[in-house]
Amino acid sequence: MGALHEGHMSLVKAAAAENSNVFVTIYVNPTQFGVNEDLDSYPKTWESDMEKLHTLNAELKNSGQGQIDAVFAPTTKTMYPVLPPDSSIPGQGSFVTITPLGNLLEGKSRPVFFRGVATVCMKLFNIVQADRVYFGQKDVQQTVVIKRLVKDFHLNTEVRVLPTEREADGLAMSSRNVYLGERRRTTGIVLRKALRAAEAAYLKGKRVRDEILAHAWDEVNMRQLEQEEMQDTERAMFEVDYISLADPDTMEEIDTVDSTKGAILSGAVKMLSLERTKDGERLGLGDDKVPVRLIDNIALAPKEP
Amino acid sequence: MGALHEGHMSLVKAAAAENSNVFVTIYVNPTQFGVNEDLDSYPKTWESDMEKLHTLNAELKNSGQGQIDAVFAPTTKTMYPVLPPDSSIPGQGSFVTITPLGNLLEGKSRPVFFRGVATVCMKLFNIVQADRVYFGQKDVQQTVVIKRLVKDFHLNTEVRVLPTEREADGLAMSSRNVYLGERRRTTGIVLRKALRAAEAAYLKGKRVRDEILAHAWDEVNMRQLEQEEMQDTERAMFEVDYISLADPDTMEEIDTVDSTKGAILSGAVKMLSLERTKDGERLGLGDDKVPVRLIDNIALAPKEP
Repeated sequence: MGALHEGHMSLVKAAAAENSNVFVTIYVNPTQFGVNEDLDSYPKTWESDMEKLHTLNAELKNSGQGQIDAVFAPTTKTMYPVLPPDSSIPGQGSFVTITPLGNLLEGKSRPVFFRGVATVCMKLFNIVQADRVYFGQKDVQQTVVIKRLVKDFHLNTEVRVLPTEREADGLAMSSRNVYLGERRRTTGIVLRKALRAAEAAYLKGKRVRDEILAHAWDEVNMRQLEQEEMQDTERAMFEVDYISLADPDTMEEIDTVDSTKGAILSGAVKMLSLERTKDGERLGLGDDKVPVRLIDNIALAPKEP
Repeated sequence: MGALHEGHMSLVKAAAAENSNVFVTIYVNPTQFGVNEDLDSYPKTWESDMEKLHTLNAELKNSGQGQIDAVFAPTTKTMYPVLPPDSSIPGQGSFVTITPLGNLLEGKSRPVFFRGVATVCMKLFNIVQADRVYFGQKDVQQTVVIKRLVKDFHLNTEVRVLPTEREADGLAMSSRNVYLGERRRTTGIVLRKALRAAEAAYLKGKRVRDEILAHAWDEVNMRQLEQEEMQDTERAMFEVDYISLADPDTMEEIDTVDSTKGAILSGAVKMLSLERTKDGERLGLGDDKVPVRLIDNIALAPKEP
């Protein structure tokens, strides 16, 4: 989707380490944006994206690893050759749907999202016919949808999922982070901390949903209280969309973690616009007036029972 | 889908004439049968199908053409590896939908049909990765759906459509024809005759929908009247489901034929069960008690204006 950051670059590096020829696709896919969503405001960063890829490719050239062969940046007429892309439901066109998986979690608040993702990935995979495709763990439900797509439609490619790249304090890299000024940026770490607290419970042997998630909710509630008690010139309010403990293959909520399968801890938090800003405060793109939805997750690895 | 007849064999022959290695897939796909449709009663003819293919392959061996390399007859667990096949709407699973094309004509009376067809063909195409895939003109809307599937999803295969194989009197070959006894068999030709009458009008220069279709309806109405006036031991009653004049790329109804594009004339007729049979009458499988839906079509070729 462009707006390349360290997370994307780590995918290209991993692909170059494991393959001789790397293809990068950059395409802001209209069918995964809902009718009222921010397709037009999606950051367009073609020049800086190309610069980053050129710089990385120069490094790769000297490393004896694979290189970027091509950047595939198609027009929408190429990707949707017959009917114009439709983001409504049911909508008209040729679509791949993956249910119920695509309707859970991120799909609940964005009902066309995974239909758009599955559809465009099917097209991209058929065009490039890659031996391996690379996705980031950051969008964990997307990786589960893509693995299902490959399995159910017998696509001849291997899905590789690479760890989430993070800022020094642990915040997951995202194209949306540029919208976070200092205040929202500092508070935004709450989701990561909540998930880490729940993970710690799992690592200490907890397997029951409520015993694991209580730790995440404690962290979230504590931080929310803390913000509420601050002045509106100091605080950054947020809302929790969901905190989930799910089966790693279906993303369905589970009551107990099966130690032989592990689980996915994930969450989404909406950083609200700042109520009042202060002189001299470091603000994000859009002056922290735009709400920013942050997502993150931790894969709880299988354990001996 | 098995129950191989001359129509299927002509596809294998065409494939062998144009390719060195031919794969035949035989799979009765559950997701294209509606919840109340006749999946279980679909004829199972594995032994005779194999015999026909062996016989044909022996002929091909001596002809210097391509040969059948393999028959791919997967289990449903192979084709639907994660969730069991679902024939309900919206249903759960991984599906390809092609709309509005898949909801017209044959899709109107069978709402899951083309979803099932598009889904299973996507899987089969990915498994076999054929240079060319062969379909019969008989199921014209299916050929349009498959061409759209290939175009929209950028599948790397060529769709070849071969002419409908017909009985001596012109009745289109179909696995369902075995259910027609002599009386319904004779009357069943009405659809073919109606479409031919409309085609004749087109060939004589008519381009307006009503002027073309009037000839088909005249034929149908005349034959219907004729049956009504006969004794119930002599007649074979039928109902017309639709007679269509459609755009060849979208299958949408048209008011005028664009001479540069041509059009598709198609129809569906339901042969009702016989009201009363006679001693010694030649009956079809199931003693002509099962209504049989017949479809047929004629492609009106483009003409100089």
